[in-house]
Amino acid sequence: MSGSVFGKNFTVTTWGESHGKGIGVVIDGCPAGLELSEEDIQRFLDRRKPGQSKYTTQRKETDSVKILSGVFEGRTTGTPISMVVFNEDQRSRDYSAISDIYRPGHADYTFDSKFGFRDYRGGGRSSGRETIARVAAGAVAIKILEQLGVSVHAYSREIGGIKAETVDLNECGNNPFNMPDAEAARLVAEKADAYMKNLNSLGGIIECTVSGMPVGIGEPVFDKLDARLAQAIMSIGAVKGIEIGDGFMAARSSGQENNDEFYSVNGEVKKATNHSGGILGGMSDGSEIIIRAAVKPTPSVAAAQKTVNTSGENIEINIKGRHDPMIVPRAVVVVESMTALTLLDLLIDNMSSRLDGIIEFYRK
Amino acid sequence: MSGSVFGKNFTVTTWGESHGKGIGVVIDGCPAGLELSEEDIQRFLDRRKPGQSKYTTQRKETDSVKILSGVFEGRTTGTPISMVVFNEDQRSRDYSAISDIYRPGHADYTFDSKFGFRDYRGGGRSSGRETIARVAAGAVAIKILEQLGVSVHAYSREIGGIKAETVDLNECGNNPFNMPDAEAARLVAEKADAYMKNLNSLGGIIECTVSGMPVGIGEPVFDKLDARLAQAIMSIGAVKGIEIGDGFMAARSSGQENNDEFYSVNGEVKKATNHSGGILGGMSDGSEIIIRAAVKPTPSVAAAQKTVNTSGENIEINIKGRHDPMIVPRAVVVVESMTALTLLDLLIDNMSSRLDGIIEFYRK
Amino acid sequence: MSGSVFGKNFTVTTWGESHGKGIGVVIDGCPAGLELSEEDIQRFLDRRKPGQSKYTTQRKETDSVKILSGVFEGRTTGTPISMVVFNEDQRSRDYSAISDIYRPGHADYTFDSKFGFRDYRGGGRSSGRETIARVAAGAVAIKILEQLGVSVHAYSREIGGIKAETVDLNECGNNPFNMPDAEAARLVAEKADAYMKNLNSLGGIIECTVSGMPVGIGEPVFDKLDARLAQAIMSIGAVKGIEIGDGFMAARSSGQENNDEFYSVNGEVKKATNHSGGILGGMSDGSEIIIRAAVKPTPSVAAAQKTVNTSGENIEINIKGRHDPMIVPRAVVVVESMTALTLLDLLIDNMSSRLDGIIEFYRK
Amino acid sequence: MSGSVFGKNFTVTTWGESHGKGIGVVIDGCPAGLELSEEDIQRFLDRRKPGQSKYTTQRKETDSVKILSGVFEGRTTGTPISMVVFNEDQRSRDYSAISDIYRPGHADYTFDSKFGFRDYRGGGRSSGRETIARVAAGAVAIKILEQLGVSVHAYSREIGGIKAETVDLNECGNNPFNMPDAEAARLVAEKADAYMKNLNSLGGIIECTVSGMPVGIGEPVFDKLDARLAQAIMSIGAVKGIEIGDGFMAARSSGQENNDEFYSVNGEVKKATNHSGGILGGMSDGSEIIIRAAVKPTPSVAAAQKTVNTSGENIEINIKGRHDPMIVPRAVVVVESMTALTLLDLLIDNMSSRLDGIIEFYRK
Repeated sequence: MSGSVFGKNFTVTTWGESHGKGIGVVIDGCPAGLELSEEDIQRFLDRRKPGQSKYTTQRKETDSVKILSGVFEGRTTGTPISMVVFNEDQRSRDYSAISDIYRPGHADYTFDSKFGFRDYRGGGRSSGRETIARVAAGAVAIKILEQLGVSVHAYSREIGGIKAETVDLNECGNNPFNMPDAEAARLVAEKADAYMKNLNSLGGIIECTVSGMPVGIGEPVFDKLDARLAQAIMSIGAVKGIEIGDGFMAARSSGQENNDEFYSVNGEVKKATNHSGGILGGMSDGSEIIIRAAVKPTPSVAAAQKTVNTSGENIEINIKGRHDPMIVPRAVVVVESMTALTLLDLLIDNMSSRLDGIIEFYRK
Repeated sequence: MSGSVFGKNFTVTTWGESHGKGIGVVIDGCPAGLELSEEDIQRFLDRRKPGQSKYTTQRKETDSVKILSGVFEGRTTGTPISMVVFNEDQRSRDYSAISDIYRPGHADYTFDSKFGFRDYRGGGRSSGRETIARVAAGAVAIKILEQLGVSVHAYSREIGGIKAETVDLNECGNNPFNMPDAEAARLVAEKADAYMKNLNSLGGIIECTVSGMPVGIGEPVFDKLDARLAQAIMSIGAVKGIEIGDGFMAARSSGQENNDEFYSVNGEVKKATNHSGGILGGMSDGSEIIIRAAVKPTPSVAAAQKTVNTSGENIEINIKGRHDPMIVPRAVVVVESMTALTLLDLLIDNMSSRLDGIIEFYRK
Repeated sequence: MSGSVFGKNFTVTTWGESHGKGIGVVIDGCPAGLELSEEDIQRFLDRRKPGQSKYTTQRKETDSVKILSGVFEGRTTGTPISMVVFNEDQRSRDYSAISDIYRPGHADYTFDSKFGFRDYRGGGRSSGRETIARVAAGAVAIKILEQLGVSVHAYSREIGGIKAETVDLNECGNNPFNMPDAEAARLVAEKADAYMKNLNSLGGIIECTVSGMPVGIGEPVFDKLDARLAQAIMSIGAVKGIEIGDGFMAARSSGQENNDEFYSVNGEVKKATNHSGGILGGMSDGSEIIIRAAVKPTPSVAAAQKTVNTSGENIEINIKGRHDPMIVPRAVVVVESMTALTLLDLLIDNMSSRLDGIIEFYRK
Repeated sequence: MSGSVFGKNFTVTTWGESHGKGIGVVIDGCPAGLELSEEDIQRFLDRRKPGQSKYTTQRKETDSVKILSGVFEGRTTGTPISMVVFNEDQRSRDYSAISDIYRPGHADYTFDSKFGFRDYRGGGRSSGRETIARVAAGAVAIKILEQLGVSVHAYSREIGGIKAETVDLNECGNNPFNMPDAEAARLVAEKADAYMKNLNSLGGIIECTVSGMPVGIGEPVFDKLDARLAQAIMSIGAVKGIEIGDGFMAARSSGQENNDEFYSVNGEVKKATNHSGGILGGMSDGSEIIIRAAVKPTPSVAAAQKTVNTSGENIEINIKGRHDPMIVPRAVVVVESMTALTLLDLLIDNMSSRLDGIIEFYRK
């Protein structure tokens, strides 16, 4: 039994509960020689920080990261990097209201069933705060990917059924939804206002694109690039679906339409279309990688809900507290992080795919 | 670099190429004492066997499995189970037509880019025949799951955009598409006839349900049940998307609608709805588990296609050979297999989730 | 690249450098429901604490452990347990004396060769302080093993060639060497005094015994109990050899002498002798498990030594500082810890060795 | 539960029982582009083949290997290499004599205790024939190491207490013991003759040296080169101890004696002595790597032995059959194989230890 370790080469282990001492991560396998500072990490954590607009939880958490090991004189040493965000907001709130109930859409019931009891404060280990550790590790992976010419960008493709029709990454910072389309963001704001008034919440779709990947990354059979991405992204709390390229639309297409024809320009192989979303046979094909994740609406809604308590009694609850009316905008950076962790892990794996590559490496 | 090993406890390693000596699998970690015969495996392999209708490839392959180790006097010994299907159809066909071209929608280009060359005969390692090994291993997992009261059933939910409106598992065997709805199957046949005439192919959606799972299976954070299922199923060749429960529809739902209320009958916790698809917080919640996989149309279409050859020249090809006009019907048992392998692996993991469970185990 | 993760089920990840912010460990896979306090851990850390006699380094380090996650209301929750010992002694000492030299017997040269540079302060990651993390994790494993009726005891069997002729565990606390033989301890003190005067150091042999192990723990072939113990114990900094039972003496024995005859008392199988050291075919055989580890003399000796610097120049050095004249006494608890981590990991593995065990577990 | 998988990058899974259908291995992670034929493997298998002198079992087994996958047109493809040696000697011998007894020094009792029953034919999975799979995989690893300039040589350093005083590798082939010293071999022959007459058996020590290893291979902390070698070699059936360099002698040495001084010649770092056995801080230090393994005497002796049967009755047995009077000579190639598998796995791991190495790899 375990489950908090991710990756084979760039191995990430996370720990921490929402209202415990803190949230942290250890990266084992970060290559030596990367310039790394707490600011490099903080920049990414700030993107998932709450309280940035009225559409996210109003909790105040600065989420300041500390690097505890693995960096010396500003560079990674090749030994484990331990990072921690100490929880500030540990005040002895009264949790008696939720300690003995199973909130619908939450992991309370399954946690109790599995482990016999649970840290019920703020969701404990199943809190969204767990993603702090993923983002901290992801920031390191992204910095390495940048040096390999690989860039990862995610954004809210759709919220509450309202879809961004255009994708202008520069637009994402201009609205509280990380949406690449100003008009769509305006419509989302309207819908969100109405839903918040009704004590309700919204879901959406996060899209993530990767450019600059070398061809051939990912391993045939079980460790296909798309398979590993699927695990990585489905492991984010509220994600209920994932697709690559045309995804579920491909299931309604035909072979003649869905196949991407190859062509060559000065001997360089290119694809005329990109229905495959940048992955063929589980390996990157040189086109842009396109991933979409379906995020369910925040389960913590303030409206009255029926449920049971730990004694097995049927009850009705009203969840108090400061909850996000939507998870999508803050989860964008989490999707980027999990994508980056997966890409880097497989880029390292790929270094030994050919004997001549190994020989050349050691002949230097 | 690797990628042909799946699972941590019930560890499956597959090998083999489409037109090599055979396709095989080694299971390391199968518990001792399971009654197991070649017939138990063959029954599942026969479900993916080609040539069963005009809607699958007309190749003749009996795909007879041999158990080479790990079974003694009819029972598993706890040591590795090696199984092999020797390839019959190794005749020295002329592969010169495809040896130096990159077929659109196939892994030819990515394989060459990664490894420098490839076994081009029939797709080599990226052939659909690789799934023989998955099905053989899955058959063992399914037999164990049965003894734990867990059953796994998959079927074609949709083909070529035509959806099964009803799900009657008994109907699946009455049509060549594994469809649980006779009328839908009739419409699919019509559409498939037309597409085959046009040298085209179809995709579809496979749905898989699991009943009888104990509550609490799956590990919080990275090894969530849905995350591991996502990797397992996305690792099947033609799968481009996966969703759990309402999946992508949940992204368009609201918290009030999407939350499944709990209620209790005689102290037993139940859910009023099952939008979650049987998984909450990455752990089974006692409801039916519902998985859907999007399968792309067969990339091997006989119509003319533009592409490039290994010399980087732009060419036009017509793929000859006996290919499946749709992958979905034969992939149904593969989805069941990958689901079963994942469930069993996590059921074993879960045995050490509580100290009292470990103590009780060893006090016996 | 990685290497700071140990164990498959009870997975331990360590981090930290000698003179960095601290030393820590994350345990992923600790079962829920174990009563655990910082005192439980501290008790073990105190056994490896320096400054307890003149025969260990005179550095003052209180090495107080903090539990940061995974424990709620005094019990483990089943989620990762993060523990840290913050370094007190981080004063800005002048390390220029060793920053650019390769100390004989140390990892300076290999670290630089591998990673390009190193954290040279106090040995950085290769410092003996790294074992703090192993002991903290080991303390948790030992507490679980106790509840399974398994006990682990290590002691100094030999120091500087002087062997404990008798083994009285109660004696270990009466001398500064963790020796189970008072007379041997007296002789070691004499020898150590002389060696310290000559700026020299001593090695020795740690013996570890395990009683109460169920029969059949360990996996055939690569994950044999002795094989996993060998990795675990050889991974401790100064260990250069490991043997099980008669070990190297078995190599000079004969089959008739070395075989342990079985006999039965009221149907219970016992062994007349224990040359095997409690392990047969890589699985525990019900007898006491006996492990011995050869520990090299402390490489940090104050006498002048020839070596090279990072510029490749031949130089002579005198290592200053407060170093242990022998590592053995303080490493005893580290051997216990690594043994316990290995035993527990394999005890968990073994829970799925038989189908009927799995069925019974889930039928409850 | 598992245990038949070895290595993280060059991953080896073995299967098969002594008197089942065959013994096999799958290598997942072999780099593409290695020229490989069955002869390359057979050469190594022939070195462990029985019946080569009167000092090994007189069974006739040709042990011919077949490559079933992963090699195309004479070169490895990067996909799993499946190899098998089909058992010839499966004749329906009468095993009733040993089916219900626990042979001293064997794994019969522990196997039954763990799994509930066992394949008792010729030792089943715990037979020495299991090492066929290790040698087949090792042969591939050795071929790759050769191309990296790394060579591995093992020999019998000591048999029955008689030690090779000199090491002349050319001598190994001149005697039936793989001994590098003709005079020692002569004395062993005398001793072995006497022991065989008395229905007894002998043990010994295998020494293995590695030259040409780059500096810095092995990972700090748990995956130290010596730790991984220890697991690898202790996992060989009859091995009861392992040491690196001076090993147990180092425990009786002093720091001043045991430290290897560095010196430099034209800027190249060298060591004046090699007490460390080529490993410092868990990483290769550029000197020859020296490993010794203690091998117990063959437990199958023909003399009468007391034991119990599966009904718990005290009985006396005489083991019939054609057994090796000593395991050492045939195990030499197994030690080489396990060493090579470990070295290669860690050489691959090391490729991502520095960021600049990764960048350079992908810039090509």
